[in-house]
Amino acid sequence: MALPILKDALDFPESDREFLEPHLPPKDGTTPTPDAPFVTLTFATSLDSSLALSPGAPTAISGPQSKAMTHYLRSRHDGILIGVGTAVADDPSLKCRIIGVGGYGSEGLDGQPRPIVIDPTARWDFTSNSKLFKLCREGKGRAPWIVTAAKNPPAEKAALLEQYGGKFVVMDITTSDIGEHRLDWHELMLKLKENGLASVMIEGGGQVINSLLEPQNLATISSVIVTIAPTWLGQGGVVVSPARRHDDTGKAIPAARLAGAKWYPFGEDVVLCGKVKL
Amino acid sequence: MALPILKDALDFPESDREFLEPHLPPKDGTTPTPDAPFVTLTFATSLDSSLALSPGAPTAISGPQSKAMTHYLRSRHDGILIGVGTAVADDPSLKCRIIGVGGYGSEGLDGQPRPIVIDPTARWDFTSNSKLFKLCREGKGRAPWIVTAAKNPPAEKAALLEQYGGKFVVMDITTSDIGEHRLDWHELMLKLKENGLASVMIEGGGQVINSLLEPQNLATISSVIVTIAPTWLGQGGVVVSPARRHDDTGKAIPAARLAGAKWYPFGEDVVLCGKVKL
Repeated sequence: MALPILKDALDFPESDREFLEPHLPPKDGTTPTPDAPFVTLTFATSLDSSLALSPGAPTAISGPQSKAMTHYLRSRHDGILIGVGTAVADDPSLKCRIIGVGGYGSEGLDGQPRPIVIDPTARWDFTSNSKLFKLCREGKGRAPWIVTAAKNPPAEKAALLEQYGGKFVVMDITTSDIGEHRLDWHELMLKLKENGLASVMIEGGGQVINSLLEPQNLATISSVIVTIAPTWLGQGGVVVSPARRHDDTGKAIPAARLAGAKWYPFGEDVVLCGKVKL
Repeated sequence: MALPILKDALDFPESDREFLEPHLPPKDGTTPTPDAPFVTLTFATSLDSSLALSPGAPTAISGPQSKAMTHYLRSRHDGILIGVGTAVADDPSLKCRIIGVGGYGSEGLDGQPRPIVIDPTARWDFTSNSKLFKLCREGKGRAPWIVTAAKNPPAEKAALLEQYGGKFVVMDITTSDIGEHRLDWHELMLKLKENGLASVMIEGGGQVINSLLEPQNLATISSVIVTIAPTWLGQGGVVVSPARRHDDTGKAIPAARLAGAKWYPFGEDVVLCGKVKL
């Protein structure tokens, strides 16, 4: 018996899926190498490269079509990764609302990606009222995996995660003198593959994206999908712009570039797909 | 007799001109109102909205096709406007190298726009060796008009300008406590129209563009043409991002948005055309 489709389900027509296909994880689950997942970096910005007007102010930048696209992309990945800043600021759902996925027209959780939150110090103060757990109870999402360097994450948080089928994933994360966390993204991806994820979609926020776009992390990225809306948010937003890069002589050079870039006009927005040039 | 076409002339094929036409000044010279010119705001940025790696470091961001497009756009405007920062940093040519314009296949200066430099304090230390004057001597460009608030611009500079057919255009420019110049863009455009320019292309740099994108100046802009290249220059570049804007309650809101936005993939870049939403 077909399940009823929920009212907030999103349609993303077949005709729009075509252009994305070459930039997505293969449907048969093959990965770039046997021990690393397919990693898609994806986000939406304004013309001035802002993700939001300010941290914790989720800003509707892209149009309705782009929103449906994001949910379709989620359905095509095993995991969906964000930084703790976004988790704290947004209390995000990270679910997939495309018609036909688990909770939206079919039983089980097929098509619902595993939320992964990078939280070096295990500071995210989630409770069973956090949206992610609420969705678990409603059968519309999976419990998060929380990647942390905290050797002994708080027991009651670990218990709550476990109760819903989530967990802490402990790994070494270097913290610099000024308190910046330096994650080995490649190592993390190997760990996520070990844990069964063949594809990971990295959604944000600014710190996570800018970190991925640094030279030593570029090889981790399989595909980049950026939506750009024809608006300027103005100075002071949450900006995607990687750290300044220099050549051997100390001269400033562009930080990163896409190879095989393709631009797809999409509603009022444009979708840019490509691979990072190594 | 047809003149020889210079080696550095650029070709911009008819097929590429079509998509730009709806966003350009009418060919018959009609203007939005009888006393204001058609004003096109145009520039090329990286994905992180940088015009250049740093001031005075002209950065090749967009591809060869986009470069030819810029020169075609120049051929379609009576004037081409930049700020003094760009003039000082780049010693720009501001000429048009499209095949067939004056100096590039035809006699006279048809298709060569009038360079206009905004220089509130008349600080630009040009000489007859500056590129703009060199081009005048070669019959490949017009002498600049320099817009200034200096009541008595240096006589020797005025004489040099006059010798080549340029001039100082004196107008009121308010200077704030912190030394920021507040130009009345609308008044300037009226003045340029009075002086015979039916269309003005505003090219940069960052300060000029950001100023134009502030709420009180948006009505001055007839058309926006932005080229975006699939590269991130990284933090610390010369960034296009207007000042933060707030609504009546003090809440941050997007600074500006385009209406009727059209995206044209163009080589590896994309060209965004639209009108500013008022």
